Amino acid sequence: MGTRQIVPAGGGAGLRLARGERLRIIDIEGGQTGDLMAFSQDGRERLSNGRSFDYGGKIYLSTGDVLWSDRSNPMLTIVEDDVGRHDFLYAPCSLEMYRMQYSVTGYHANCHDNLRSALRALGIEPDSLPNAFNFFMNVEVLADGRLRIVEPRGRAGDSMVLRAEMDLAVALTACPTSSCNGGAAPRPIAYEIPS
Amino acid sequence: MGTRQIVPAGGGAGLRLARGERLRIIDIEGGQTGDLMAFSQDGRERLSNGRSFDYGGKIYLSTGDVLWSDRSNPMLTIVEDDVGRHDFLYAPCSLEMYRMQYSVTGYHANCHDNLRSALRALGIEPDSLPNAFNFFMNVEVLADGRLRIVEPRGRAGDSMVLRAEMDLAVALTACPTSSCNGGAAPRPIAYEIPS
Repeated sequence: MGTRQIVPAGGGAGLRLARGERLRIIDIEGGQTGDLMAFSQDGRERLSNGRSFDYGGKIYLSTGDVLWSDRSNPMLTIVEDDVGRHDFLYAPCSLEMYRMQYSVTGYHANCHDNLRSALRALGIEPDSLPNAFNFFMNVEVLADGRLRIVEPRGRAGDSMVLRAEMDLAVALTACPTSSCNGGAAPRPIAYEIPS
Repeated sequence: MGTRQIVPAGGGAGLRLARGERLRIIDIEGGQTGDLMAFSQDGRERLSNGRSFDYGGKIYLSTGDVLWSDRSNPMLTIVEDDVGRHDFLYAPCSLEMYRMQYSVTGYHANCHDNLRSALRALGIEPDSLPNAFNFFMNVEVLADGRLRIVEPRGRAGDSMVLRAEMDLAVALTACPTSSCNGGAAPRPIAYEIPS
């Protein structure tokens, strides 16, 4: 087993994965969501929700499904998934989102800035971040297309494992937005890179 | 009325919109889809499906709904819409998509390259294109999250009008992929910038 690392509640972390390595993401206390962003280590390819929806033929990805890059290469394959429901529709929460939707006036921790910081430390500074893969986040699409953020399905100790299909720079967050976390205050996420 | 311009079947076109100007997109023959990409004229902001889904609270956008930028500013508002169903989930068709999903071996016209070319002519060369807004394209999301591309709802002469909420560089395509166009060979799209 790899050493267990912690993404602090409301914070972020960066890591590198060599092709073939696996990343286990653990919902320590249950009901906590986060964002996963991936770039090729040379920074030329990035996660694409639109390519993943197209090539997967679906919006809900779980075991056996692939997260694709904007250049149509597989980045990560989900190889284990205790939770079974994740979101790939929502953009990372951002300061602007907190200002518009939550009337925040000062600074507020947010996944966008946490992803940016974690990627910067890995040498990745794109002109814009694409959508992240929002692991453990549960979003229903109603028949008329309206979206509803509902209770995450993850229980304490649940995890998912993704296998790197290329050399990757990855950023993870533990999302600070309570409405994504079943109304709870943000809690940490753990990860391991099993040897 | 502005002069009617043509986006050739399977091709693309670029245009600039000043804040407040309107763009009418016309389905000349009915059942034809296309991609719309928007950048701020300085190139710093780009269309974001994830922000638009979040702030609109829905995946199907129509009259009164806003296409948001990655920096959380309104780019375009839909102010008229005869068709009423568009897609914002699928990435632009690309050469890689044709190779993987249609076994194309040589070059094939594709919306990604057409958007890139049209934007380049407007001085916009981002490191990666985000998802486009796929006007007139009709995608159903089944209850389990699977996607189904179905017959477009547009009939001959139907149009939609978008109002620019900032100064924009816009690229349009008339999509060459028959499966998005109800099985028909690609046809042109028209547009006007009413004065």
